[in-house]
Amino acid sequence: MGEIVYITRREKFNAGHRMFRPDWTDEKNYEVFGKCANPLGHGHNYVLLVTVKGKLDPETGYLVDLSGLGNIIRNEIIEKLDHKNINLEVDFMQGKIVSSENMAIAIWHQLLPHIIKLGIELHCIRIEETDNNYVEYYGNNN
Amino acid sequence: MGEIVYITRREKFNAGHRMFRPDWTDEKNYEVFGKCANPLGHGHNYVLLVTVKGKLDPETGYLVDLSGLGNIIRNEIIEKLDHKNINLEVDFMQGKIVSSENMAIAIWHQLLPHIIKLGIELHCIRIEETDNNYVEYYGNNN
Amino acid sequence: MGEIVYITRREKFNAGHRMFRPDWTDEKNYEVFGKCANPLGHGHNYVLLVTVKGKLDPETGYLVDLSGLGNIIRNEIIEKLDHKNINLEVDFMQGKIVSSENMAIAIWHQLLPHIIKLGIELHCIRIEETDNNYVEYYGNNN
Amino acid sequence: MGEIVYITRREKFNAGHRMFRPDWTDEKNYEVFGKCANPLGHGHNYVLLVTVKGKLDPETGYLVDLSGLGNIIRNEIIEKLDHKNINLEVDFMQGKIVSSENMAIAIWHQLLPHIIKLGIELHCIRIEETDNNYVEYYGNNN
Amino acid sequence: MGEIVYITRREKFNAGHRMFRPDWTDEKNYEVFGKCANPLGHGHNYVLLVTVKGKLDPETGYLVDLSGLGNIIRNEIIEKLDHKNINLEVDFMQGKIVSSENMAIAIWHQLLPHIIKLGIELHCIRIEETDNNYVEYYGNNN
Amino acid sequence: MGEIVYITRREKFNAGHRMFRPDWTDEKNYEVFGKCANPLGHGHNYVLLVTVKGKLDPETGYLVDLSGLGNIIRNEIIEKLDHKNINLEVDFMQGKIVSSENMAIAIWHQLLPHIIKLGIELHCIRIEETDNNYVEYYGNNN
Repeated sequence: MGEIVYITRREKFNAGHRMFRPDWTDEKNYEVFGKCANPLGHGHNYVLLVTVKGKLDPETGYLVDLSGLGNIIRNEIIEKLDHKNINLEVDFMQGKIVSSENMAIAIWHQLLPHIIKLGIELHCIRIEETDNNYVEYYGNNN
Repeated sequence: MGEIVYITRREKFNAGHRMFRPDWTDEKNYEVFGKCANPLGHGHNYVLLVTVKGKLDPETGYLVDLSGLGNIIRNEIIEKLDHKNINLEVDFMQGKIVSSENMAIAIWHQLLPHIIKLGIELHCIRIEETDNNYVEYYGNNN
Repeated sequence: MGEIVYITRREKFNAGHRMFRPDWTDEKNYEVFGKCANPLGHGHNYVLLVTVKGKLDPETGYLVDLSGLGNIIRNEIIEKLDHKNINLEVDFMQGKIVSSENMAIAIWHQLLPHIIKLGIELHCIRIEETDNNYVEYYGNNN
Repeated sequence: MGEIVYITRREKFNAGHRMFRPDWTDEKNYEVFGKCANPLGHGHNYVLLVTVKGKLDPETGYLVDLSGLGNIIRNEIIEKLDHKNINLEVDFMQGKIVSSENMAIAIWHQLLPHIIKLGIELHCIRIEETDNNYVEYYGNNN
Repeated sequence: MGEIVYITRREKFNAGHRMFRPDWTDEKNYEVFGKCANPLGHGHNYVLLVTVKGKLDPETGYLVDLSGLGNIIRNEIIEKLDHKNINLEVDFMQGKIVSSENMAIAIWHQLLPHIIKLGIELHCIRIEETDNNYVEYYGNNN
Repeated sequence: MGEIVYITRREKFNAGHRMFRPDWTDEKNYEVFGKCANPLGHGHNYVLLVTVKGKLDPETGYLVDLSGLGNIIRNEIIEKLDHKNINLEVDFMQGKIVSSENMAIAIWHQLLPHIIKLGIELHCIRIEETDNNYVEYYGNNN
């Protein structure tokens, strides 16, 4: 047996980004991305929420060792993003447009093998760029 | 292809309302609606969260132009509600009891045609009346 | 002896109000007060912060019995404002323009005798009308 | 008919707890539960979110009388947990490891008969132990 | 007549910055500024709180027209900082190290003449760089 | 020269406590401290805000190295309080009633020598026990 529960872990990082496509003119980039296309970049205090899902371990009362999960998120994601220029310095975002949508999908794929190794499922990646907007990604089949 | 992502936009408005049915006596209104039936009204700082869903546009890395979505929400909803008496001044609430439940449903129907025109789906309308209560509506089939 | 400490208590209330002067024309009211002059009123989830100051009681480790202070604030202020139309139903606001500034001053005078009876000082009244604006009043001599 | 809506109610309680199994040695408890195994206990300001689901009552515009729902949550849950040592003083947690996961499941079963009596469904129990972690439980079949 | 009150207005902006002195080596910059010296920059969702002080206008019940104050803050400060690289694009920060301390002082001097013109005093500039740190500046004589 | 600025650092800790005097009967303890006198303890997610004050260093644009200040607060205060029973396990609270007032004063004296060594002043210690109450201590002469 073992009941199904969901656990969400919240982490923060501060990073710089710029919205643009190198194959477009500056005019086109400004037209599509507005002030987010500023070539000198800008930045955010991002909030990342990682939701995992699985069967409770009746022996410990835990779904998963939360500090172990926290270490994975910090090592695989936060360390690579915090105080960085996402366009230029983050390996898993190279060649991609640095939208919150693409960040959520890339973080999903970055975390997935580590979460599977813990014997649980990855359920949702949420990126909050500001207090007023957030993106959620639930994997391919949702 | 194009991955499915969800985007949520948060907006605020301040408005007055009163809970009552004109076909009930004052006693009955107070009995059912309590202090919310106050004939002179009261008000809230409402928070509205609109969640949309769809396929990412691989060319821009966006689900949808977020400032365009924001303009729709502000023009169709916020402008009509902010600093208004919802019972008396909001066209899409006429003839309805001004509960958060009815507001969420009415806002869904108000926004739906505009969201469809953007080529994406409306997923959820959430109304937070205070820090301690919120209502969510996912459309007819949920 | 007894060290000086400050205690702040936070309470919330939901109320309706309208900004206007009965001795002005509607045009003048709209010109000065903008959309807050809406004759049908609107409302807010107000936050009230009451800061008191005094010498710690070494016997209890408390400045003041906090639940007693809470009761005073609720009985004298919150009960009179919550779910009310401030212009029409709140005795201590009669004949006053219902600005946050005037509310802070009126609440100060409403609470002062009760705080003095507790053997402590009233230090500050803060009214937060929205997340983005607040008013503070420290009494006549500040 | 009547549309399906979801309502969430948020309540808070302050309580002490300790993570441990009496059938394990202290060493084993520290190894598995880390600093949460501290025999002298520690505590949290817990946040509880209860989400219910059902058909809107067209006569009142409400899913359910929210103050009635609030009374149930306060009487059955908050009164039993607030300012208590959860390991030693909370009947519905006896014999269980005091994890947030087990608390969410126990609160579900505690509330379920009362929610059913209201003619609505219990949809989700969420426990927030800190700003950075929360657990959600949706019942057996999710 | 005319009671003294304080009003605080809160605004947000997203911007990129880098901590460094051009007259220092990269090594020295990293030694003093740590990861904030990253040459490619990073960014924040900054929060700005502007507190003004003055005598209440008994005719309007206001200290100052708040939307007029908001316009000044947006035109003189937010427009110049939002979605910008503060080191390279903000006139009033040129030649300065882009610390929150220096930003608070520069914003003070930028706003001061406009606040004086309103017939009120500038009391405090607060910059919140993250949820966990903020800087306050009260002018030269504090 | 060097302008005067204030910096506030926010840290959190989770701890258990009980309000009581060993020289009082249980009845007297319950009468004065209410449910906070529960002999089995309860707990909180405390928030600590430390405000320091001093002259800006024109060479770095900083008042103080914030990560150094953070390390002091974590080593001297947070490490000693987090996940602890404050009545029984925190050296600087021994023999004191565990009120927020006494905690603020004890933390002030615990931090003061370390802050002085940094060449700056300690300005305020704030303890938030819940969202609705906080205590501030500004030292002996305030």
